[in-house]
Amino acid sequence: MIEDLDFSMRVRKIDGIVGYGETTLADPDLTYVVGGTLARGGFYFKKCGRPPLLVVSNLDYGSAKRSGRVKRVQTLTQWGYEKLQKEYAGRDEASPRLVAKILRKEGISGRVVLFGRNDLAKALRFAQTLRRLGVQLVGERPPTVVETARDTKERHELESLRDVGKRTAKIVDRLLQSLHNATTKRGHLQVGEKRATIGLIKSHVASMLAAEGLSAPEGTIFAVGASGADPHNAGDPTAEIKKGRLIVFDIFPQAENGYWSDLTRTFVLGRADSKAREMFETVRQAQGDAIDHLRAGVTGETSMNRACDVIERAGFETVRGLYTGREKRITSGFIHSLGHGVGLTIGESPYLSFNSRAPLKAGEVVTVEPGVYIPGYGGVRIEDTVLIKSKGIEILTPIENELELS
Amino acid sequence: MIEDLDFSMRVRKIDGIVGYGETTLADPDLTYVVGGTLARGGFYFKKCGRPPLLVVSNLDYGSAKRSGRVKRVQTLTQWGYEKLQKEYAGRDEASPRLVAKILRKEGISGRVVLFGRNDLAKALRFAQTLRRLGVQLVGERPPTVVETARDTKERHELESLRDVGKRTAKIVDRLLQSLHNATTKRGHLQVGEKRATIGLIKSHVASMLAAEGLSAPEGTIFAVGASGADPHNAGDPTAEIKKGRLIVFDIFPQAENGYWSDLTRTFVLGRADSKAREMFETVRQAQGDAIDHLRAGVTGETSMNRACDVIERAGFETVRGLYTGREKRITSGFIHSLGHGVGLTIGESPYLSFNSRAPLKAGEVVTVEPGVYIPGYGGVRIEDTVLIKSKGIEILTPIENELELS
Repeated sequence: MIEDLDFSMRVRKIDGIVGYGETTLADPDLTYVVGGTLARGGFYFKKCGRPPLLVVSNLDYGSAKRSGRVKRVQTLTQWGYEKLQKEYAGRDEASPRLVAKILRKEGISGRVVLFGRNDLAKALRFAQTLRRLGVQLVGERPPTVVETARDTKERHELESLRDVGKRTAKIVDRLLQSLHNATTKRGHLQVGEKRATIGLIKSHVASMLAAEGLSAPEGTIFAVGASGADPHNAGDPTAEIKKGRLIVFDIFPQAENGYWSDLTRTFVLGRADSKAREMFETVRQAQGDAIDHLRAGVTGETSMNRACDVIERAGFETVRGLYTGREKRITSGFIHSLGHGVGLTIGESPYLSFNSRAPLKAGEVVTVEPGVYIPGYGGVRIEDTVLIKSKGIEILTPIENELELS
Repeated sequence: MIEDLDFSMRVRKIDGIVGYGETTLADPDLTYVVGGTLARGGFYFKKCGRPPLLVVSNLDYGSAKRSGRVKRVQTLTQWGYEKLQKEYAGRDEASPRLVAKILRKEGISGRVVLFGRNDLAKALRFAQTLRRLGVQLVGERPPTVVETARDTKERHELESLRDVGKRTAKIVDRLLQSLHNATTKRGHLQVGEKRATIGLIKSHVASMLAAEGLSAPEGTIFAVGASGADPHNAGDPTAEIKKGRLIVFDIFPQAENGYWSDLTRTFVLGRADSKAREMFETVRQAQGDAIDHLRAGVTGETSMNRACDVIERAGFETVRGLYTGREKRITSGFIHSLGHGVGLTIGESPYLSFNSRAPLKAGEVVTVEPGVYIPGYGGVRIEDTVLIKSKGIEILTPIENELELS
C-alpha cells in the first residue's frame, strides 16, 4: 500500500524518492505512485513523512488532478522549466536542474532514490549531473521502496484486479462455449467449411479482448498436443486443432489502467484419453489443495511443497527434486514454480516457490498455477489469480474448470 | 542503421556498449539491437569495431538465434550465471558480476555506455557495483549511440513500417467505408435502432486492430466537433456523433514486432459547412505542399515554414509567431509542429519543427501532420507517415483523403 512508502523510507534512511519518465506506459512504479496514466509522464517527489508532489506538463495537469492520488499537482511551467530549458539546453541539464531545484524547495537533503523505467544511457548522465549539483543519490536492491509498497494491494487496486479478472474469465468462458458448440470433421475443429487454425482462434480471442477493453502485450498461449509440454510454447498459428488433444489456453491481459490478470484452463475437444485425465485430475487436485491452504501467514515455500506432495503422490516428478539435490535435471512433471504476484506487472513479488520463505500477507495477489508436462505428449496447467486474505483467499478469475468440451 | 554504431562509438570515444533488460517489451533500443523480442530479455555487448554478443536465458536462445541479427548468441548458463547467483545472491551482485566478466572476455576496457529501459532504483545500484568492479561507465546526452543508429531505417525495418502502414490504412479505409454506408436519423449516426457513440466506434476500431494483429497501447483519437479543437482530446466515449461536425480520427497502432504507424484523417458525416471546407482545404494544401518538397537534405525547419506559409496565407495563425516573437501565445490555427520520427517508438528524432536545423536523411521515417484548430468549433488534421528518400518521399500510409462522407 502507498502508505508503506514512509515506513520503508525510514527503515532504509531515505530522505526522498524521485520518480520520473516520459510516459507512465510500461512503467509500473510511476503508474502506481501517480495513480493513473500520464501521456507525457512527469516528475514525482516525496520527502519521508510528507505528502508527495507531482509536476507534469500542462497537457497532463487535468488527468493528474482527476486521478486524485497525489493532491499536490503542479506544472512544469510553474517551476520555470521552459526557462531552464533555454538556459541549460546546450548542456542538456534542464531536467536535473529542475529536479535539484524542487528537491531543495521540498526540503529533501538526505539520501535520495530515483525510480521509474528510463533509458540508462541518458539516466546515468542525469544521475551524474544531479550528484554534481549536490544530490546524494543511492541505488536500491530489490524489493525497492516502491516495489515494497506495491506488494500489498489497496482497495482501488483490488477493484481493478477483480474487474480485469472477471473480464478475463468472461473471455475464456465465451471461447470455451464456442469451442463446445463448434463442429468437428474427421477429428478436426471446423470453421464453416475450413479447418480452424490456432491463428484463427487467437484472432478471435484478440477481438474479444478488444471488445472488453483489454490488451495482451505479452501474447496469449494456445498450445495443442505435444507443444503444450513446453510451458512457454505459445502455439503455432498455422497448426490445426485435433479432437482428443490436450489444449493449454493461458491468457494474461492488461486493462487500460495497467492492471493485469492471469488465467489458464486446459481442456480437450471431445473425449480425453486416460493419460490426459490422470494429468488433469492430478493438477486440479494440486491446485485445489494449494488454494485450500493458502492464506496470510503461509509461506510460498509451504504452498509449493503442498502442490508437489499431490503431484508426486500421483507418480509425476516435480522441481522439488532439484532443491533437495535428489535430481540433477527434470524434463517432465511439474517443472516450474506454483505462482507469482500480479498487479501492475504480470510477474512480481511474492512468488510461490522454494525460494519464498517470507509469510504471505493479506492484500497480496498471486497466481496459483500447478502444471504437469509430458514431452512428446502434452501439458496440463490450471491457473487462477487469487487474493490472499487473513482467512483463506478470494478467486479473482471465477470460471468453471472441466476437461472435456463435449 | 545498425552499421552506424561503430562510427558513433568511435566519434564519442566509447569502447563498448552494454544493453540489458528483463524484457524487450516497451524497450525500443534493446528490441533494435536484438532484432526481435526476447520474453526474458538479456544482455547485449558490443565492443567498438567488433561484432556483438547476445547472452540470454535458455528459454530465449532459440528466438534469439532465429532473429539472426546477432550472430553470436550464448546462454546465461554458459557464462556461469547460476553459479554467480549462488555466490553473490546475498549482495545482489550476480548481474553486474556477469557483465564485468563478459566485458573482460570481450576486451572492453575503455569507456562503456549502458542502455535499455530499466527501473532506476535498481539500475543505479547496478551501475555503482560495475564501477566498483573497475568498469568505466559514462552517460550520454540524446541522441545516444543507439538512438543515432535507429534514426535511419534499414531495409527490414522499412518492410515492417510499410506493412504496419498498409494495415493501418486498411483499418481507416474500412471504418470510413462503414461510416459512409451507415444510416443517420435526426442528424445522428445510428447503429441499428440506437444512436452510435464514440465508445462504440472505438471498440469497432479495436476489433479491427486485433484482427490485423495490431495493438494501440497509447489509444486512438476519435474527436467530434469542438473537442477536436484540442489535438490531444481522444474523444468522450459516451458522446454521440452528429452529422456535419468535423471528426478527427488519429490512429497510431503498433505491430507485434514493435514498429508503429501514425495516420490521421478528418471528415464529416454528410455535408460540411464552409468553415470546415476552408480549414480542410488549407490543411490539405499545407500537407501536400510540405510533402511535395520533402526529401533528403531539406531541414525540418524548412518543411515547417512551408506548411506555415500555406496556413498563414489562408488567414490562420501558426506557431511561427511564437518563434519570431511576433506572438506571445496562440490559441487557434496551426498550434503544433509538422511531424516527428516513427519507428520502434511513436515519437522520436527527426522532428519537423522550428528547432530542426539538421538536414533530413534518406531512410528517416516521419509523420507529416499539419492541422488547424478553432476552439469552440473543431479541428482538422491530416497526417501520413512517410519515408524520406534522396528524391522525394514514399507514403507509408496509402489512403484517400476526402472531407465529406456522403
